[in-house]
Amino acid sequence: MATPLPERVCIVEVGPRDGLQNEPETIPTGIKVAFIEALAASGLQRIEATAFVHPKAIPQLADAGEIVTRLPKTDSVTFSALVPNMKGLERALACGVKRIAVFTAASETFTQKNIQMTIDESLTVFGEVITAARSAGVSVRGYVSTCFVCPYEGDVDKADVLRVCERLLELGVDEVAISDTIGAAAPTDVLHTVGFVLESIACERVALHFHDTYGTALANVFAGLQLGITTFDASAGGLGGCPYAPGASGNLATEDLVYMLDRIGIHSGVDLERLAVASRLLAKHLGRTLPSRQLQRLS
Amino acid sequence: MATPLPERVCIVEVGPRDGLQNEPETIPTGIKVAFIEALAASGLQRIEATAFVHPKAIPQLADAGEIVTRLPKTDSVTFSALVPNMKGLERALACGVKRIAVFTAASETFTQKNIQMTIDESLTVFGEVITAARSAGVSVRGYVSTCFVCPYEGDVDKADVLRVCERLLELGVDEVAISDTIGAAAPTDVLHTVGFVLESIACERVALHFHDTYGTALANVFAGLQLGITTFDASAGGLGGCPYAPGASGNLATEDLVYMLDRIGIHSGVDLERLAVASRLLAKHLGRTLPSRQLQRLS
Repeated sequence: MATPLPERVCIVEVGPRDGLQNEPETIPTGIKVAFIEALAASGLQRIEATAFVHPKAIPQLADAGEIVTRLPKTDSVTFSALVPNMKGLERALACGVKRIAVFTAASETFTQKNIQMTIDESLTVFGEVITAARSAGVSVRGYVSTCFVCPYEGDVDKADVLRVCERLLELGVDEVAISDTIGAAAPTDVLHTVGFVLESIACERVALHFHDTYGTALANVFAGLQLGITTFDASAGGLGGCPYAPGASGNLATEDLVYMLDRIGIHSGVDLERLAVASRLLAKHLGRTLPSRQLQRLS
Repeated sequence: MATPLPERVCIVEVGPRDGLQNEPETIPTGIKVAFIEALAASGLQRIEATAFVHPKAIPQLADAGEIVTRLPKTDSVTFSALVPNMKGLERALACGVKRIAVFTAASETFTQKNIQMTIDESLTVFGEVITAARSAGVSVRGYVSTCFVCPYEGDVDKADVLRVCERLLELGVDEVAISDTIGAAAPTDVLHTVGFVLESIACERVALHFHDTYGTALANVFAGLQLGITTFDASAGGLGGCPYAPGASGNLATEDLVYMLDRIGIHSGVDLERLAVASRLLAKHLGRTLPSRQLQRLS
């Protein structure tokens, strides 16, 4: 291909947050902590550990404070927590969180149905959160949902994606996670939309977040690699989904991503066997097989 | 990308052969015929219907003769049958088969373990089969197994793949199906090996046959599309695998392939809903969920 693929990528493990928030049953805090410890031991360098959302909205993550205080004490992993508003930020800061994530979307209808705000309103809210976080020495990632297909509006305009990404960066996030919330994108969508975004935003500021609803997630990662992207989200075992997005299923499985990166020869620092230890721990508690294809081969 | 993607591709449906040969239980002939009829009604233009192998070796396909005589009478679908030797060809010709497939591999160890011949010996055997078939007005496809990774030898040399493909074409096949038998390839393997083959062999002569063991099949298809390949094998519902290849799991699911092609905007002529009718018919008989992600969304 014209552009050589990156030599190294960083995987952002989102299973403890994006995965577990969608489990019908709440996982005991001790199991979550053991899961996160096992993930950290696999070589992952970034783990989104929980979310400081309202316990009534997502009771599965009501133990966010306790999770943060019980995180492994290690310098080799950056832990983050999702934060929806100032109240969530205050809770996160009180626990000593060092990195947070905020979220909006590229589709107006999705944003209104998901967080009951317009995109502009959400940017106002998050602008305050980002400013307060940074004043406290906390760095911020910004998720942009529905960057390719919206379950309500269909195809999403690449200009809308770029606009929201640029606004978030202006507000002070250090990274935008361009997300295929319902897993509907094909690799040509990635080349089209992300390629367009990269004309204005540096590659290092862009992460890609795929779901594997139709099996296209690794194809989309490959398109991202061809564009030079070096940060990819994934969820151990393929846990996850989005309860507010019709048609969404599991996140791209971290094991499947690591398998493909290993085979290509791209360094991620993650040990597949150790990663499987984490996923198996959770699969055993849930009492079911997780969707990752690679995990099923290893088990 | 540098090369525009093809506007149209042809899908070769291999479920009735590559899929059903691996089912532990033999499917009743009437169910197979109904499955093939439903596949033909979905818009598929090429279907590998069965194999004239020894009934003791693969009892699941012992009804090959009856399957062929009960195939739908239609000009819009080309049906084929796998044939391992002259005896199989004689049975196939007696039933009026118009297209056959023969198979060897790019890895010496795999070939010897799979068909108890060296690659050269297999080419001698298949040379006679191909000549006899063509004399009878029957066209021939040649499968080349283990073109990327061999379960016994590891990485396969692209020069070995090219040599076997060229020999098969010299012997009279009109198409080589470059196969990732154990589903271990990454898209960079496809760009590397298939890209090399295409320096010597016309794109129209090359089909790609992927298994989805680790979830990379669609990524590999995307790499193939970037090389200009226009023929891809797939198996309805993701049925299949290879009983002689350790670690092999299901074929790329036809539904997942059609979803991605539709989303990209590449014409395949296959109607996803009608295709799902065929897969559901079989899933109902087997009493289990098939691995296709798209099929699970449609069901």
